[in-house]
Amino acid sequence: MSIFEQLESEVRSYCRGWPVVFDRASGSRIYAEDGRPYLDFFAGAGALNYGHNNPVLKQALIDYLARDGVTHALDMFTAAKRDLLVTLEEKIFAPRELSYRVVFPGPGGTNAVEAALKLARKVTGRKQVVHFTNGFHGMTLGALSATGNSLHRRGAGVPLVHATPMPFDRYFDDSFPYLGYFERLLDDPGSGLDEPAAVIVETVQGEGGINAASAEWLRGLQELCRSHGILVIVDDVQMGCGRTGPFFSFEDAGIEPDLVCLSKSIGGYGLPMALTLIKPELDVWEPGEHNGTFRGVSPAFVTAAEALRVYWSDDELEKSTRAKGERVGIGLQNVVERFPEAGLVAKGRGLARGLEFSGGELAGQVCAAAFERGLLLETSGPGGEVVKLLPPLTLTDAEVDEGLEIIAESVKSALVGGR
Amino acid sequence: MSIFEQLESEVRSYCRGWPVVFDRASGSRIYAEDGRPYLDFFAGAGALNYGHNNPVLKQALIDYLARDGVTHALDMFTAAKRDLLVTLEEKIFAPRELSYRVVFPGPGGTNAVEAALKLARKVTGRKQVVHFTNGFHGMTLGALSATGNSLHRRGAGVPLVHATPMPFDRYFDDSFPYLGYFERLLDDPGSGLDEPAAVIVETVQGEGGINAASAEWLRGLQELCRSHGILVIVDDVQMGCGRTGPFFSFEDAGIEPDLVCLSKSIGGYGLPMALTLIKPELDVWEPGEHNGTFRGVSPAFVTAAEALRVYWSDDELEKSTRAKGERVGIGLQNVVERFPEAGLVAKGRGLARGLEFSGGELAGQVCAAAFERGLLLETSGPGGEVVKLLPPLTLTDAEVDEGLEIIAESVKSALVGGR
Amino acid sequence: MSIFEQLESEVRSYCRGWPVVFDRASGSRIYAEDGRPYLDFFAGAGALNYGHNNPVLKQALIDYLARDGVTHALDMFTAAKRDLLVTLEEKIFAPRELSYRVVFPGPGGTNAVEAALKLARKVTGRKQVVHFTNGFHGMTLGALSATGNSLHRRGAGVPLVHATPMPFDRYFDDSFPYLGYFERLLDDPGSGLDEPAAVIVETVQGEGGINAASAEWLRGLQELCRSHGILVIVDDVQMGCGRTGPFFSFEDAGIEPDLVCLSKSIGGYGLPMALTLIKPELDVWEPGEHNGTFRGVSPAFVTAAEALRVYWSDDELEKSTRAKGERVGIGLQNVVERFPEAGLVAKGRGLARGLEFSGGELAGQVCAAAFERGLLLETSGPGGEVVKLLPPLTLTDAEVDEGLEIIAESVKSALVGGR
Amino acid sequence: MSIFEQLESEVRSYCRGWPVVFDRASGSRIYAEDGRPYLDFFAGAGALNYGHNNPVLKQALIDYLARDGVTHALDMFTAAKRDLLVTLEEKIFAPRELSYRVVFPGPGGTNAVEAALKLARKVTGRKQVVHFTNGFHGMTLGALSATGNSLHRRGAGVPLVHATPMPFDRYFDDSFPYLGYFERLLDDPGSGLDEPAAVIVETVQGEGGINAASAEWLRGLQELCRSHGILVIVDDVQMGCGRTGPFFSFEDAGIEPDLVCLSKSIGGYGLPMALTLIKPELDVWEPGEHNGTFRGVSPAFVTAAEALRVYWSDDELEKSTRAKGERVGIGLQNVVERFPEAGLVAKGRGLARGLEFSGGELAGQVCAAAFERGLLLETSGPGGEVVKLLPPLTLTDAEVDEGLEIIAESVKSALVGGR
Repeated sequence: MSIFEQLESEVRSYCRGWPVVFDRASGSRIYAEDGRPYLDFFAGAGALNYGHNNPVLKQALIDYLARDGVTHALDMFTAAKRDLLVTLEEKIFAPRELSYRVVFPGPGGTNAVEAALKLARKVTGRKQVVHFTNGFHGMTLGALSATGNSLHRRGAGVPLVHATPMPFDRYFDDSFPYLGYFERLLDDPGSGLDEPAAVIVETVQGEGGINAASAEWLRGLQELCRSHGILVIVDDVQMGCGRTGPFFSFEDAGIEPDLVCLSKSIGGYGLPMALTLIKPELDVWEPGEHNGTFRGVSPAFVTAAEALRVYWSDDELEKSTRAKGERVGIGLQNVVERFPEAGLVAKGRGLARGLEFSGGELAGQVCAAAFERGLLLETSGPGGEVVKLLPPLTLTDAEVDEGLEIIAESVKSALVGGR
Repeated sequence: MSIFEQLESEVRSYCRGWPVVFDRASGSRIYAEDGRPYLDFFAGAGALNYGHNNPVLKQALIDYLARDGVTHALDMFTAAKRDLLVTLEEKIFAPRELSYRVVFPGPGGTNAVEAALKLARKVTGRKQVVHFTNGFHGMTLGALSATGNSLHRRGAGVPLVHATPMPFDRYFDDSFPYLGYFERLLDDPGSGLDEPAAVIVETVQGEGGINAASAEWLRGLQELCRSHGILVIVDDVQMGCGRTGPFFSFEDAGIEPDLVCLSKSIGGYGLPMALTLIKPELDVWEPGEHNGTFRGVSPAFVTAAEALRVYWSDDELEKSTRAKGERVGIGLQNVVERFPEAGLVAKGRGLARGLEFSGGELAGQVCAAAFERGLLLETSGPGGEVVKLLPPLTLTDAEVDEGLEIIAESVKSALVGGR
Repeated sequence: MSIFEQLESEVRSYCRGWPVVFDRASGSRIYAEDGRPYLDFFAGAGALNYGHNNPVLKQALIDYLARDGVTHALDMFTAAKRDLLVTLEEKIFAPRELSYRVVFPGPGGTNAVEAALKLARKVTGRKQVVHFTNGFHGMTLGALSATGNSLHRRGAGVPLVHATPMPFDRYFDDSFPYLGYFERLLDDPGSGLDEPAAVIVETVQGEGGINAASAEWLRGLQELCRSHGILVIVDDVQMGCGRTGPFFSFEDAGIEPDLVCLSKSIGGYGLPMALTLIKPELDVWEPGEHNGTFRGVSPAFVTAAEALRVYWSDDELEKSTRAKGERVGIGLQNVVERFPEAGLVAKGRGLARGLEFSGGELAGQVCAAAFERGLLLETSGPGGEVVKLLPPLTLTDAEVDEGLEIIAESVKSALVGGR
Repeated sequence: MSIFEQLESEVRSYCRGWPVVFDRASGSRIYAEDGRPYLDFFAGAGALNYGHNNPVLKQALIDYLARDGVTHALDMFTAAKRDLLVTLEEKIFAPRELSYRVVFPGPGGTNAVEAALKLARKVTGRKQVVHFTNGFHGMTLGALSATGNSLHRRGAGVPLVHATPMPFDRYFDDSFPYLGYFERLLDDPGSGLDEPAAVIVETVQGEGGINAASAEWLRGLQELCRSHGILVIVDDVQMGCGRTGPFFSFEDAGIEPDLVCLSKSIGGYGLPMALTLIKPELDVWEPGEHNGTFRGVSPAFVTAAEALRVYWSDDELEKSTRAKGERVGIGLQNVVERFPEAGLVAKGRGLARGLEFSGGELAGQVCAAAFERGLLLETSGPGGEVVKLLPPLTLTDAEVDEGLEIIAESVKSALVGGR
C-alpha cells in the first residue's frame, strides 16, 4: 500500500476506513484484491443506484466502445446524446408532465450546482442564495459557499459569500417557526437578508445526516419562494434517480423546482456525468457562456439512456425501492428498540437511510465493525454521528437482510463490546 | 435534430458550427451519422491527444470493464489507482526528477484548478491570486475568477473576486516591462496589489488564442514568485500530456511549478479525469477537506496508466510531436506568406498551433469553409480571431498535410471568395 | 428654497418632511427663519442629548475658540484631548470599573463602527460578523454590510458580504428560541454559519423602530459570545451618552462589551466626534494602521469633556432621564389606550421612545400633523411605521407634556381626520 | 503624558514623531503647552489651507455660535446650508462653468469617497473600480479597497475586493505605456479586467509621496474613461481647495470629473465637513438612500462659505499659491543640488511639495531634525521616503524661507550628522 502513502495526498479519506485494495465489483458486492467480498451499502455515495457493473448497462457500454462510438464530444451533436435526450423526454419528463431544458454543465455534481447557481443569479439579477443547515452541494467555490460543513468550508482558503443558511426542516425543535421565520426575513425590508436569487435544497440531506424534509415543508418552501420571485433549486445529485423511490426525490411532495441538479447515478454505471435541468424560461445564457471539456461523455450517455429505458419504463423499480426502503426502515427500528438506552434514531426515506448515534465516535466504531464483517457503511452528519445506508436500489431482499444483520451485530459490538 | 433544439439549452455551442450528428470516431477521424468522415484538428479541445478510441487503450478499457473491474470508487484504494500511481511515478515523475503528491480533485479541469487555488490560499493564508490576460481556467466560481474571457465572466452572476490579471508574455508590445511591472507592484507596499497566494499560468494559452510564453518569461515568473513567497500553479490541462512535445508543457522552460493541473488528455481515452499535482510540503489538507464523487473513475485510470506506458516510456511521442508541430508550423507560415496583405500570423508550439486573422468573423469563415471540406477546426482568442489547431498527437504526416491543404483552401476561400 | 432644489442632491431626506429653513436653536427648540419655534423631539437623531446650543458647553466652546485653542490636530497630543481622556477616565470608566482603551476612529458613527469591525476581524482572524434584524450601523461599506435596511443596502452598488443577520430580541413571537437558535448554529459544525469575529448590537434599535432588547437577552448574548470566542460590539452611537438613562445603554443589563461605538452626543454640542472603546487586549493595530483626518477635532473634545463634567459627575441626569422617560412612556400609553381600535404600541426605554402604527403612511401623517403643530418627530422602523421620540435629555417636564399633547392631537388628527 | 499612554490606543501615530502636547495655534504656527512655537508645514494634512484659527473665519464662527445658529442639522434646510450652496455656486461652480449637484456624504473624506463609489456603482451597474498605485482614499471598507497602502489594507481584516490598481502616471519608467496599457485591458474582452464603474484618482498623490500627474495623463485618462462609459472620480480631498493653486486641483488639466470628493480644507477652519459633487445626471439615489448623522455641520458650513467668499472671490490666493509653490520648489531644488550624492528629488506642484530620499529612515530623520528646530513636517510615500510639505496657503514668504532654511539644515544634519 506504500505507493498510496508515498504519492497520494493526505486529503484521501474513504480509504482510511476501508484499508484494503479493491479490485472487482458486481451488483451489490465489491471485492478486495484478495478476493474478499464486501456487501456495499455505500454504493459510490449514491452513484451506483443500479449496482456495480450492472450487466445490462455494461453490455451497452462495451458495445458502444467496441463499435467506436464517439467517446468525447464536448457539446457537439452526437447520436448518443440524441438518444439520451429522447429517452429523458419519453421516460422521465413526459410521464411526469415536466418541462425542462437540459444543460450539460460538466461531469460532476458540483458542476451541476455551479451552473444552477450561476444561472439563477444571472436570471434574477440577485446575488444572494439561501441554502440550508447541513446541506451539501460541492467543493468548487460557488457550490461550497452553499455547503454547511465547516471542515469543507475552511478548505476554501477565502471567505465564502453570497450565501446564507436557513434552518432545514426540523433542524430545531417542533416549536420553531421554520418557514415562518424565513418568510419574516423576506417580508421585512429591514431584516438584512438581501433578496435571494434562489434557494438550493436537498429533499433528503445525505451528507448532512439523512435528514428528510417533509412534503409540507417542501411545498411551503416552494410557495414562499414563488411569492418572492425566488427560484427553487433542488439538488437531487444524491437523492435523485430513484434513491427515495420516485425518479426525482421531490415527486412525492408534488413540487416542481425551477432548476434540478442531477449527477451521481444519472450516468447509470458510475461514469462521471451531470445534468442541470432548467425551466425553459430560464434558458438565457448565450452560446458558450458556460462550458467545459467533459460535458459530452458519450459512454455515460449510453449507460444513462439504457438505465432510463430499463428501469424507468414502468414503476417496478420505484415500488421495489419503496418496499426495500420500508424493510430497511423496520430493520433499523428493530435495532433502535433493541438498545433503548442508547437513544438511537432511525432516519430516512426510500433507500436513503440512517441510524443516528449519540456521537461520531460510536458511529465510526459501528462502521469499522461492519467493515470487519464484510459490509461497507459510511458515516454522515456534521459530527459523523449518523451511519448512512445507501445500498444499490437493485439489491435483493436477502442482501437487505444480510446487511441489517451485520448492522445489528456491529451496533451491539460497538455498544456492548466484544466481536 | 429537433430534439436538440427542443430540449438542449441554448448554451450549447460547438454544435452550432458543426451542424451534423456525429456517431463514430477513430484515430484522427470522426464520422457523422451519414458516414461522412471529418479530419479532427480539434481533438476534444485537447482531450484526445492519443486520438479517438485509440485501439490499445480501447482494448485495456474493454478488458477492464469485461472483467468487472471496479468502475466507481471515490477515493478508496483500488488496484487501478495503484497502477496509475506507480506508472505516474515510473514514467513521469522519476525520469524528470519531479517530486509531487497527487490530489484527485474531481473529474474535470475546473476541479483541478479549484483544488489548486483552494490549497494555495490555505497554505499561504493569502487570498489574492494573479492570473494572466486571456488565460482560461474553468467555469466554476473559483476557476472562473481567474479566467479572462468576459463572456464567461458575465455568466457568473456575481462579481468575481480575489483574482487580479497581469499581462501575459508579449501581451503588449516589446517595450512593455512584463515581469518588471509585476515585480514593481509586488515590491511596492503602496501598489494596492495584495500579496498573492499564487499565480496561475498556462505556458501556451489555448482558449486565449494560442499564445506561447517564452521560456525566459516562465523562468523569470517562477523566480519572481519564489522570491515573494508566491506559489506557481501551471494549468497544464490543455497543454500538458505532450501537447507541446514534452509531457509537461513547462519542461522546456526548465521550471518546476508548485502545483500542476492536469485533465483533458490525462485519462487517455477522453473519459473525465483530472489530477492536481502538489509539492509534498503543500500537502496540508485534512482527510476529506476537499472531496467529490468522481475522484476515482477507474476506467479512466486504466486508460491513463496504459497511455503513460505506451506513449511515455520513451521519447518517441515527444520527438514526433515536435516534428509534426514543425511541419504544421511551416505549413501555416506558408499560408501566411501566400496572403501577405491579410496580415496573418502563425502562432504556437508543438501541436498547439494557431493562425491569427484580423478578426473573428474571418476566422469563423475559415472554420466554416474547413468544415465543408471535412476538417474540424475551432476558433479561439478573445474575439475568436485565431483558428486553432489541436490535432491528435498520433496523427500521421499525411493527415498533417491533408489538414494543411484544407486550411490553405479554406483561407483562400474566406479571403478571396468562391469555394 | 430653490437653491436647495437646484444644487442639493435628491438624496436629501429630512428636509422633505420639514419644508422650512431653520436658523437658530436653543435647548429643546429650533427656530425657522421666520421665527416660528419648533419643539424638537428629534434632537439631531440623538446627537443633541444636552439640547441645542447648551449654554454651558457653548461658553466652553467659544472660550476655546477665542483663545486660539488648537482646532484640528489629527492624532497629535493636545491639551484638549488630554482633558477629554482624563475626564472619560474619571467620570465614566473609573466609576463603572470599566477598562477600555480609546480609539479615535474618525468623526462619525460609521467610522466608529468600521474601526470596531476591522479590529474585531483582525484580532480574531475571522471574517464573519453577526448583526441583528433591523439594526443600523452606518453607510460606509463595512458598516452598511451589518445594517438591515434594504433601501440603504441597495445604495451600496455592490453585494454586501461577511455579515449575517440574526433575529433581534423579540423579533418573532415569544415561542422563538432566540439565542437558542443562534447557539445551535454556532455549535453545529454543519450549520453553514462561519465562526463570527463579532456580533454588533444596539441595546435599543433606534432606526430599526425603537426595539428595546431585554437585559436577559443581552446577558445571554454576551455569555454565548464569550463561550465561542466571539467579540461583543455594542453600537451605542444613538443609545449611549445617557439616552436610555445610564451613560452606556448596556449598563442596566450588566454586560461589558469588548468594543463600544460612541458618536452623536459624545461631543456634547452636536459637533462631529466618535470614539471606539476597546478592551486593552484588543489593542493590536500598528501605529497608523487605521487613521483619518478628523480624529482630533479639539472643539468637540472641549464640549465633550465639559458635558461629561457637567452631566456625569453625579447621577442627576440619569435619574432625570429615567423619570422623564417614564413620563413619556405613560403619555404614549395613554394615547395607545385612547385609540384602542388602532392597535398602537408604545415602545422604548429611557428617552428613546416610540409609538408604533399599523403602517408607515399613518405614522408619516402623525409626524406631518405634529410638524404643523410645531413639533419635530421622525419615523423609524423598516416601514417607517414607528413615530420616534428622541427629545433632548435636558427638556423640562413641561416640554414633555407639551410634546405629548401635540402627539395626542396629531394621532387623533391622523386617525380621525380634521385638524 | 501618561494618560495618553494609559488610555489612547496604540494606533495613535503622529504624536509619536512630535512628542509634545500642543495647545494653541494661529496662522502658520502651532504652540506646545510650554509655549514653544512650531512652524506648521503639515497643516492638518491639508485640512488647514487657510491657516490655524484664521481670524476672519474665527469671527464668523464665533458670531454664529454666539447667536445660537443651528449647530447640528442632519440634512434639514438651514440658513447656513443655503448660504454655503449659494456661495459654492457663485464663487466656485459658475465662474468655472461647472455643473454639479452637491451630496453631503458625512463629515470626512472617507465618507465623500464612499458616497462617490457607491453612487458610481449604482449608476453604472458595474462593481469594479480602478484606482491607482499609491493612491489614498480612506479607511472605511469601500474607500480602503481603493487605497494602495498595504499597512492600511491589512487593517481591514477582510479581503478587499471590487477594486483593481492601475499604474499612476510615471509610476514606472518613461517607456511604460501608461494609458495604453489600461486601454488595452479595457478593449480586450479577454483581459480579465471587468468593466469598471469608475476610476478614482488624485491629481497629486499626497499620502502616496507627492506624485503629480501630468495634465496630459489626466486628460487622456478622462478621454479613455468617457469612451468606455467609466465615470471619473477625482479625490480632491487633500489637493482641492487651492492646495495646488486653483480651487480644484484638476482645473489646470482642463478635465471635468463626473464626481469630485472634497473634505479637509473645504470647511475652512479644520472642522469636519465633506462634499461629494456629482454631475446632475448621476443624481439617482432615492431620498435617504445614503445618509448619516453629521451631514449638516452648520458651523463648518459657516466657515466654509466665509472662506469661499474671502479667498475665492478673485484669483489672489491662486496666484499667491502658485508663486509660493514656486518659491518652495526652488528652495527644495537648492537642497537637492546641495547634496548631489544623496540622489534627492524635489517633487510636487503648488503648495503640495515633497523631497524624496533614498529611504524612509533618512526622511524620518529629516523630520525629526526639523521638529527639533521647530518645524512640523511629515513623511509620505509607500516607504515613508518623501518629506512632505503642505504649509498653510496663507503663509508668508518669510515663513516659506524660514521653513526652507530649517529643511536645509535638517537635511544636512540627517545626511552629514551633527546638529
